[in-house]
Formats: sequence, C-alpha cells, structure tokens
Amino acid sequence: MKVNQRYYHTIWMKGSKVHMIEQNLLPFEFKIFTSRNYKETCHAIKTMIVRGAGAIGAAAGFAMAQAALEANASNYKSYLQAAKNEIDATRPTARNLFAATEKVYKAALEGKEAAITAAQQIADKDKADTKRIGELGNTLIKDGYRIETHCNAGWLAFVDHGTALAPIYLAKEAGKKVFVYVDETRPRSQGARLTAWELQNEEIPFAIIPDNAGAHLMSKGMIDMVIVGADRIARNGDTANKIGTLEKAIAAKYYGIPFYVAAPLSTFDFECLSGKDIIIEERDQEEVLYQYGISDDGKKTRILVACPNSTAINPAFDVTPAELITGIITEHGIIKPDFIEIEKLISI
Amino acid sequence: MKVNQRYYHTIWMKGSKVHMIEQNLLPFEFKIFTSRNYKETCHAIKTMIVRGAGAIGAAAGFAMAQAALEANASNYKSYLQAAKNEIDATRPTARNLFAATEKVYKAALEGKEAAITAAQQIADKDKADTKRIGELGNTLIKDGYRIETHCNAGWLAFVDHGTALAPIYLAKEAGKKVFVYVDETRPRSQGARLTAWELQNEEIPFAIIPDNAGAHLMSKGMIDMVIVGADRIARNGDTANKIGTLEKAIAAKYYGIPFYVAAPLSTFDFECLSGKDIIIEERDQEEVLYQYGISDDGKKTRILVACPNSTAINPAFDVTPAELITGIITEHGIIKPDFIEIEKLISI
Repeated sequence: MKVNQRYYHTIWMKGSKVHMIEQNLLPFEFKIFTSRNYKETCHAIKTMIVRGAGAIGAAAGFAMAQAALEANASNYKSYLQAAKNEIDATRPTARNLFAATEKVYKAALEGKEAAITAAQQIADKDKADTKRIGELGNTLIKDGYRIETHCNAGWLAFVDHGTALAPIYLAKEAGKKVFVYVDETRPRSQGARLTAWELQNEEIPFAIIPDNAGAHLMSKGMIDMVIVGADRIARNGDTANKIGTLEKAIAAKYYGIPFYVAAPLSTFDFECLSGKDIIIEERDQEEVLYQYGISDDGKKTRILVACPNSTAINPAFDVTPAELITGIITEHGIIKPDFIEIEKLISI
Repeated sequence: MKVNQRYYHTIWMKGSKVHMIEQNLLPFEFKIFTSRNYKETCHAIKTMIVRGAGAIGAAAGFAMAQAALEANASNYKSYLQAAKNEIDATRPTARNLFAATEKVYKAALEGKEAAITAAQQIADKDKADTKRIGELGNTLIKDGYRIETHCNAGWLAFVDHGTALAPIYLAKEAGKKVFVYVDETRPRSQGARLTAWELQNEEIPFAIIPDNAGAHLMSKGMIDMVIVGADRIARNGDTANKIGTLEKAIAAKYYGIPFYVAAPLSTFDFECLSGKDIIIEERDQEEVLYQYGISDDGKKTRILVACPNSTAINPAFDVTPAELITGIITEHGIIKPDFIEIEKLISI
C-alpha cells in the first residue's frame, strides 16, 4: 500500500517492538504508533489504534510474540498464559484474533524464536491471502461497475491489500473503470474516514454516502454489486461483520443485487455452527452520542451530536444469514456460503 | 406539547408575524424564531428552522398569508403569484407545502382576511388530524411494545402531536408501557436530536441507535413494530419519507415486523400515481461530511468527520414501495396502502 508515495504495511514487528499505523488519527493525521510490549499492543487493539480483522489478528500474534520475549524462564508458561488471556479479552468478535494467539502461544512453548517466526508467518500469510482474494474477486467485477462497500475492509484492516477492497484495487490495476459508494459506517465512520482515505491514496473514484442511502441507490439501479469484509464466518456461512452489513444484505437481496463477502480462511470459525453462536461486542454509547473530527480551526475536537442526557446502544457487529450472501471470496476460491462448501475448507 | 413545563405549538401566526421553534438549535438550545414577512418564512423553511411535513405545510400557508398582507392593491395578484412560486421552491418533496400554498393562494384572491383564515385553518386542522392519528395508532400498540422510529415525525414536525410519535404519546397517556428505539437518522440526526428531545420532554423511555443497528435489533426480536412519518404518499401507497426509511421497511418485511406509516390526508398526492413520480431532494454534501454539535467547552461547533477532499452524495428522502407497508394510519382510519383504499380518501 502507498501513503504519500511511500510503501507501508499496516502493522509490522522489528526486534521486540510492534509498529502500526495509528488508525484513530486517520484520515486527518498519518502517524506510526510503536508498542514496546504486549500490554501496549493489547491497549492498541482495545482502543482501535489497530482495527480490522486481519490487522487485529497480526497484532494479536505479534503481542503474543512480545509476551514470549518478555517472559522469564522461571514463569515462562504462566506469563504466556496470562498474556494470552489478556490479548484474547481485548475484542471479542474477530475470529483472527483467537486463531493468532492460539498459534503463537503453541509456538512460544517451543521457544522465543519460534514465537516470533509464527507471528511473522501470520502477517505474511495475511498479505499473500488478501492478494489472492483480490485476484479472485477481480474476476467478478465488470468494467464500469459501481460497487458499494461498508466499513473498512481495505489494506488498513489487514497487513496489506485488504479483503473487500482488494478486488477493487486489482480491477483498477487491470485497467477497469470502477466507482465505489462508501457507506460512512456510523458510529465510528470507518467508511468516511478510512475507506475514503485509502481510495483517495489509490486514486479510485468514490462518493461517501450516509448509511441510510444504500437501499435508495439500489432502488435507482445505481449499485451493481456489494462487497464487504467479515469478522467471523460460521460453519453454515452466517457472517458477522460491522453493524449495518445486515441491512445492506437484506436490501441487496430485495433488489437482486449480488452481495459478496471477502475474507481469508482465518476468518472462518469452524467451531461456530451458525451465526447464533457469535458473540456481538457492545461498545460504549459515547461513540454514538459524540463525534470526533477536525474543527474549522484545525483542532481535533469532540462534539455532542445527540440530545443531552440521552442513552444510546451501540452493537459493533451484526450477523448476516448465509441465505443473503451470494458468495464468499476466499484465497482458496469463491465459495457458496453453505455447510458443504465450507466443510471442504476445513481440510485445507 | 410541553417544553419546560409550558405549552407550545411548533409554529403559529400573530398579526403579520410567524413564530416558530428554531429547530436547528435543538436539542441544545430552545428559542423561538420570528419571521416578519413571507421571504423570511421561505428562508426558515429552506434552512430547516422549521421542518417536518405538517409544520412545513403550516409555515407555507402562513407565508402565503404574509404575502397577502404585504401585497398592494396595484400588484396584488402578481405579488401573490410570485410569492407562491418562491414558497413552492423552498423544498421539493413535502406534499403538504404545495397543498397549503394552493389553498391560501386561492383564499387570498378573495381578500387578506380570507388568506389569514385559510392559513390558520391549515394549522388547526393539522393539530386536530394528528391527534386523531394518535388515537387510531394507539389501538395498534400493545402494553410493553418496543417501537422503532426513524427521523422526527413528532410534534416538532407538525403544529402539534405529530404523526409517527402521536400513537406513542397516546399509548403512554392510556397507561401503556412503551419503549422507543430512535434511529439517529444521519446525516442531519433528527432522531438523535429532535425525537430524543421530544421523548425526553414527554418522559417516554428510549434509546438512540445508529441507523445501522435497526435490522440487527429486529433479528434479535427486540422490535415489535416500526412507525414512521411520510413526506408524500402516492396514489398507489408508495411513500416518500426521510432517507433510510426504505431500509427499515425492507428489513421489517424480512423479519415479519409490522411497518406502519402515519400521515394525514394532506400528505397524500393523488396526482402522483406511484413513487416513481416523486422528486427526491438532493441536499448539500456538507451535511454528510461535517457534523454540528456542542464541543466539550459548550460551544456550537462544526467538525469535519470524513476524509478531507472527499465527495459525498446526500439524497434527503427515499421511496418505500407500498408492498412493504403494513398500513397507513390516517385521521380517517388505518388503511391498506393500495389504490382501492386510497381512492376512497379522495372523496373526503
């Protein structure tokens, strides 16, 4: 990915330090946050300095490797176990997080170097897998397509490339004209802030739309396809993703518009039989009642945007039933979201 | 309606002046705006100092009466005609606006007093009609119901009582327990600001939700019913209302949840055969890219909430097809949204 003409990964580890793009400052400021130990990396995941399924997974893997480096011989295993519990508790929905801590924890039991190697492998695999998702997804995109996306499942949400946006980047590289309708994605506005910022950096034409406008554009024949990412996919194809994804999927079904989920195998939770088993994170109501942004005098400012003394509820994700999903674009192929197709992935 | 223990109408005329609640300042400040002539009233409609289908209709009627008071004998008819054109051009979607200017214009041709009387009748009728809508709608609400509403179709949107909220107010008066899920209703957040403020004044429990969360709550069985207002209803029952209404209607249908529109006869446009004939207002992209609110130091502040130099699109309304609407609560009864039932209203 390119930022100001320089290539970056969203997150990387060097020595015992983990470096990552500070996503809470985007799109207004571009800065690298450096975490010196696993607790600081936990903090970064929790406060969404790093966010997005793949990037959270990479961060969790690196955090686990940091813990291995920090642990003494005397308390090695108990330190690792405590660190794993703490990392696992940072955010409950993204499948990639738990897969990463599990893998690196096991490697760490063999030694510190093994932990670092395992964590790096997670990041490298994320990069390779999302590139493949982009290539496969690109085959679905026709020249001139107008594509709606929700939240940010671009390269900021992964180590590189992204999932939902990767096919769009590859389509552009292949010389196709594409236009992206970016759902602003309240309450944290990852669409208006992060996806818009990515697309601007990649010089892909787009318009931000209020989340409320999706079905309207569909009804006017202005959307050819919807592509979203995923935070967790159950064994029957039910998919947890950013709150509001479900509304787009229902609307797309109503208007007969293809609705694709793009996600690597690491997002599938084979132990989760259906969407009913997926825990949905409830976040602070402050995210709904207040908004952050840049005031006219250039300062980062928080404002109250709702009636004072109101209560809000803030579920971070929802679950889209498999029946609403046209296909899931994985690094192993574009599959139907059902038990049979997903069973085949388990053996990979 | 009660504000700080005092009774108010949303808009009223006294002498040649029109007084109205300054809705752009709500919920942070309560202030009455006074318009001295029809041009100032046009400005108030355009800038949404007064908004909501019924209140816009009353404002347009009063503006027409102001024009009649301002006109000289020498240019009476041409002045009225010019004023009517100007008032009609303030906002394109609300049916009530055009019905009001038409009625008061005709009355004004008979004299200034007749114009004032006609305008006052529109306001009085709006008050009586919305009360009746509340009574009829209340019969649909069971004790303990959790009701989702979109935008603000409460008493701020009418001269009094409201449409979508009137049944809720009447249910509360009748001793029923109700809970309201208030869609924040981006981009102008009329739900989070105005509906929340009304419900707080009326002491009805509620929670603000991001627009994205509606289908999620429906999927969890947390919504018993949706009630929304309308800006224009076509002869076949297709209904224009605030952007995002369509998504809620599609989601409600998918989950088998009753979806009601509440609107007086004045919102029906019998010359409009279907939703395809309804013009949708496109508003400034600034409303999507920036947000207004109160900063932590208590100042009204504008902040940029999207990636700098982005483009946004901002359709103000969408059209919900009749097939998604369970019923329309009018002052003449709760009707099915179809040609046959709507035909019957024409003769009233």
